[in-house]
Amino acid sequence: MKNFNFWAPTKILFGKNKVNELADEITQYGRKVLFAYGTGSIRKTGLYDKVAEQLKKAGVEYWELSGIRPNPRLKSVNEGIDICRKNNVDFILAVGGGSVIDCCKAIAAGVPYDGDPWDFTVRKATVKDPLPLGTILTLSATGTEMNGNAVISREDTKEKRALSDDSLRPKFSILDPVLTFSVNKWQTAAGTVDVMSHIFEQYFTPDRGTFVQDAIAEAILRTCLEYGQAALENPENYEARANLMWSSSLALNGLTVTGKMAGDWATHQIEHELSAYNDLTHGAGLAILFPVWMEYVLDERRAFKFAQMARNVFGIVEQNEMKAAEKGIAAVKEFFKSLGMPSSLHEVDIPADNFDHMAEQACKFGPIGVFKRLGKEQVKEILERAK
Amino acid sequence: MKNFNFWAPTKILFGKNKVNELADEITQYGRKVLFAYGTGSIRKTGLYDKVAEQLKKAGVEYWELSGIRPNPRLKSVNEGIDICRKNNVDFILAVGGGSVIDCCKAIAAGVPYDGDPWDFTVRKATVKDPLPLGTILTLSATGTEMNGNAVISREDTKEKRALSDDSLRPKFSILDPVLTFSVNKWQTAAGTVDVMSHIFEQYFTPDRGTFVQDAIAEAILRTCLEYGQAALENPENYEARANLMWSSSLALNGLTVTGKMAGDWATHQIEHELSAYNDLTHGAGLAILFPVWMEYVLDERRAFKFAQMARNVFGIVEQNEMKAAEKGIAAVKEFFKSLGMPSSLHEVDIPADNFDHMAEQACKFGPIGVFKRLGKEQVKEILERAK
Repeated sequence: MKNFNFWAPTKILFGKNKVNELADEITQYGRKVLFAYGTGSIRKTGLYDKVAEQLKKAGVEYWELSGIRPNPRLKSVNEGIDICRKNNVDFILAVGGGSVIDCCKAIAAGVPYDGDPWDFTVRKATVKDPLPLGTILTLSATGTEMNGNAVISREDTKEKRALSDDSLRPKFSILDPVLTFSVNKWQTAAGTVDVMSHIFEQYFTPDRGTFVQDAIAEAILRTCLEYGQAALENPENYEARANLMWSSSLALNGLTVTGKMAGDWATHQIEHELSAYNDLTHGAGLAILFPVWMEYVLDERRAFKFAQMARNVFGIVEQNEMKAAEKGIAAVKEFFKSLGMPSSLHEVDIPADNFDHMAEQACKFGPIGVFKRLGKEQVKEILERAK
Repeated sequence: MKNFNFWAPTKILFGKNKVNELADEITQYGRKVLFAYGTGSIRKTGLYDKVAEQLKKAGVEYWELSGIRPNPRLKSVNEGIDICRKNNVDFILAVGGGSVIDCCKAIAAGVPYDGDPWDFTVRKATVKDPLPLGTILTLSATGTEMNGNAVISREDTKEKRALSDDSLRPKFSILDPVLTFSVNKWQTAAGTVDVMSHIFEQYFTPDRGTFVQDAIAEAILRTCLEYGQAALENPENYEARANLMWSSSLALNGLTVTGKMAGDWATHQIEHELSAYNDLTHGAGLAILFPVWMEYVLDERRAFKFAQMARNVFGIVEQNEMKAAEKGIAAVKEFFKSLGMPSSLHEVDIPADNFDHMAEQACKFGPIGVFKRLGKEQVKEILERAK
């Protein structure tokens, strides 16, 4: 087990009607608030009114930033920064899924920074003294509600990149599973795939001896298997929604990667290129790419870890490592399919072009992945196999 | 799943030589430090010198409180409070196992409080504005390094009671598995039992639908099974020591009880009475009591949870719930025995008297336990069966 620091200070308020505690939380941090949300679903569900009521109860001034889209654009980030600067905003409240929250993290980082907020994603600048932020989560997927990461996109160059800093961890996150009842089947399934993919990225590493981290990773994967279907069959199954929601936060708060050299993240990197070009749902892209990646990297040396997953997550009884590994990968593929997720790019009408450029972009800073290092040619091969 | 708040803000610095980062951490919090430790083992291992060197490097003034014993006494708490008040101490550094850390939490709570610090344990006072504290852990067991709980004892009345407040969570905890290499077999085994017992207390509850919490609990139990023996066989097995150490923190930081009505804690309550009378190692007392408690509360209605543990932790294949449950309990008993832990009170020379008084004290505030409520007579029966 490698040395590590673990620090996950976000206060989680989890459960039915927890939004009623927003006023108490928010007054601990700010008096002038940016209230940011997406393309309007929170108005339909009534969440908008509840939040506005709490903001009034808290006695804070607030400004709204709406229309933040999936795969959030730099444009929204800059809009948010402008509002914050103009009004001396001292706290950001992100209400939505991963895209809204990630956009707000970029805003939080950008307000005190003189340059282009894109700089944070290309290592030209480091985050310093960002505005504090809190979240109300409406989609179980990215885990951003409990970590310091964000992913943003830019239209002009068709790039999608991540920024990350401990100081961007939300002060609090309100997780009410009822808020995810209205998430449609496609997004629900894609969210479950996203949670599982975060575990995969941190589970498939060359490390040995990180037993407790891997066992926790397996616990979260088992939870997704247990409830992935249930949430599709009955969108108001509270138990399913609650277990998936808490899993989404635990999957990417550091718990399963501590003590390892690093997560792999090659598959995410490749997916980012895909969805920067195609505005594809992130989870759907991962559902296509992960089984392909697994089959591509599987060899004698790496079979042990796929076999471990097969046995501990899918209950596959098979002595032979390679056979167990293959069965495990098949089980992942089968499970994604059972959720109604696509298994090839042509199923979601993504053309087999630009693969060269995507592969190049994915490896912009050198080969990617730690379980198996992948260069441009290998990334291209994975994209080809995903057709 | 019940509504919950989860907040575990302690920064964990984990791994070899992490004590070298102490100076950087401590200067963030204090200038006048109470350096508290136990009965001298840190002098033998060289840890004392390393800490002193870091305190000098940090440029802080410090005062020492030494001689804190297992099952820490109110006397040490009051001694610490005096030193802090006299010297305007603004930070407490606890170096040791659970007893030293718990004693320091009581000191931290007691400094700004006018009355008797025992008041916190009997609900006469609540903790307010305690001194901040940090820890360097030398024993994997209690989990106090990542939570706001403490247990202290008083000699005069032979009582052992807990206090708990979020504000008592350490600011940071340094966990170097190498520091546990010198822990002897008895204490190592007792520590593993303690970690498992914390999981049991939070696992055996009447709640249903807390799948992810239970799966994580099972992950930690599996880790203890994997490494419990290994740490005894080779005390310098880093992998074993590291997995046990991180498990000890994760077992009681809130992760496995969130979403449940509460932990059970009856067995701990009974053990506290036992060790208040007999200065018994806490983990050894738990090794005796837990299998007895499991057998005592097992019935048709509660068999499902023991069966779940049997299957998911011990890999027991058995369809019948009651039979699986019985096999699971037998496996726990067997495992504790394999660690060299006692399975009855007479093995550790504890006389079968005072059971009446102990049972009365255990139920001082009413029946105990949530999986099955236990009154005085039932507690007495468990003690009788443990003879």
